[in-house]
Amino acid sequence: MRFSVISLFPGQIDAFLKESIIGRAREKRIIDIDFYDIRDYSGNPYGKVDDTLYGGGTGMLIQCEPVYRCYEDVCSSGKPYVIYVSPKGKVLDQKKVRELAGKDHIAILCGHYEGIDSRVTDEIVDEEISIGDYVLTGGEIAAVTIIDSVSRMIEGVLPNEDAYTNESHMNGTLEASQYTKPRIWHDREVPEVLLNGNQAQIDDYNRTMSLVETMDKRPDMFDKLALTEEDWQKVLARKRQN
Amino acid sequence: MRFSVISLFPGQIDAFLKESIIGRAREKRIIDIDFYDIRDYSGNPYGKVDDTLYGGGTGMLIQCEPVYRCYEDVCSSGKPYVIYVSPKGKVLDQKKVRELAGKDHIAILCGHYEGIDSRVTDEIVDEEISIGDYVLTGGEIAAVTIIDSVSRMIEGVLPNEDAYTNESHMNGTLEASQYTKPRIWHDREVPEVLLNGNQAQIDDYNRTMSLVETMDKRPDMFDKLALTEEDWQKVLARKRQN
Repeated sequence: MRFSVISLFPGQIDAFLKESIIGRAREKRIIDIDFYDIRDYSGNPYGKVDDTLYGGGTGMLIQCEPVYRCYEDVCSSGKPYVIYVSPKGKVLDQKKVRELAGKDHIAILCGHYEGIDSRVTDEIVDEEISIGDYVLTGGEIAAVTIIDSVSRMIEGVLPNEDAYTNESHMNGTLEASQYTKPRIWHDREVPEVLLNGNQAQIDDYNRTMSLVETMDKRPDMFDKLALTEEDWQKVLARKRQN
Repeated sequence: MRFSVISLFPGQIDAFLKESIIGRAREKRIIDIDFYDIRDYSGNPYGKVDDTLYGGGTGMLIQCEPVYRCYEDVCSSGKPYVIYVSPKGKVLDQKKVRELAGKDHIAILCGHYEGIDSRVTDEIVDEEISIGDYVLTGGEIAAVTIIDSVSRMIEGVLPNEDAYTNESHMNGTLEASQYTKPRIWHDREVPEVLLNGNQAQIDDYNRTMSLVETMDKRPDMFDKLALTEEDWQKVLARKRQN
């Protein structure tokens, strides 16, 4: 899978995505990321790509032409699926992440400062995506978020497929609490059932605790679950114990 | 304002936050960020801080004791407000960002791999925050997101206060489309009203277009707005023109 990043700060994104799991996936060429600096397409010797807003207002806006020329360069090896990261986009969720993981080539356009002239985004962008209902200083963090979340769904990036079949948001629930050695820490004990080696009991416990966590922390997600009567009784029993 | 980051990959976060607006705010000491590597608190010569999960399951979990020792070190100059970034937390929004911008010292604990033993997070964490309903390879991206979004609300970080009073999510609406030179690009013209110099008309146009954008792109946000009859009529008139 290939990502092309179009940004004023491509080096910032490149450096972040060189470490750990994504860094190894890049080394193995399971994913390829190439970077395009909008300033290289300024058409002037100063690398100036922004100007003041029509109608007044604070700050500078990135102009159409450098973005468009950069986009044409990205397209020289075929048209990618173009995402513009912006606080005005559709909010990213795990369903969208899975959908994007099915694409061959995604280009991510990052705004900075006040953003980008709307005419060029209207012309080249397939989808506007936001990573959440908050504002960042630039789209670079959003690009990293999309590349990281999508890449980890590509076969071979995570060490083991199990790593994402039981995790939070994979099936609309949050993961149960997890524990490692030692068995007792600061008077806090690991739940007995996790130590008894009975895998059916352990799975049943983890499934119930996953539902309890979801009910406690994300009632909005819990309300969307289609629980069986048996699951519901187990959740209630567990709630009475706590 | 001070941030302390507790992570297995502190260098990754540090490098990202050295550029552009946040980098300048750090140079000016408007914000200070210090970094703590959990491995430095492993208590063993290999820097090993993780172990397998009780009850089975894929992957490794970060242990309680290294995290706790690291946390004690962070607290040596006073107790910070401790955030654990995790897909199980309350989802970040601009309201939470503004609330966090009022704190003096925030510590952000980042999980990686399968996460952190729940007993230590139960003991030291004030609030669990998620940046969205998707899963990342580690908490480092979430830490960068929180530090960036919160820092830009601190006085002196952005060049001008206006930069955030009219932007998306500041008052439950999305920003209107913005334009810069040239006036005509690829046959697309800047809306006439933005060129006429009548600031009252421009402000009125931008306000209406902000409402139209919100209705089109985020009906969930639009439904929460308390519109006057006059605003509503302007939005309807604009929709009929398009």
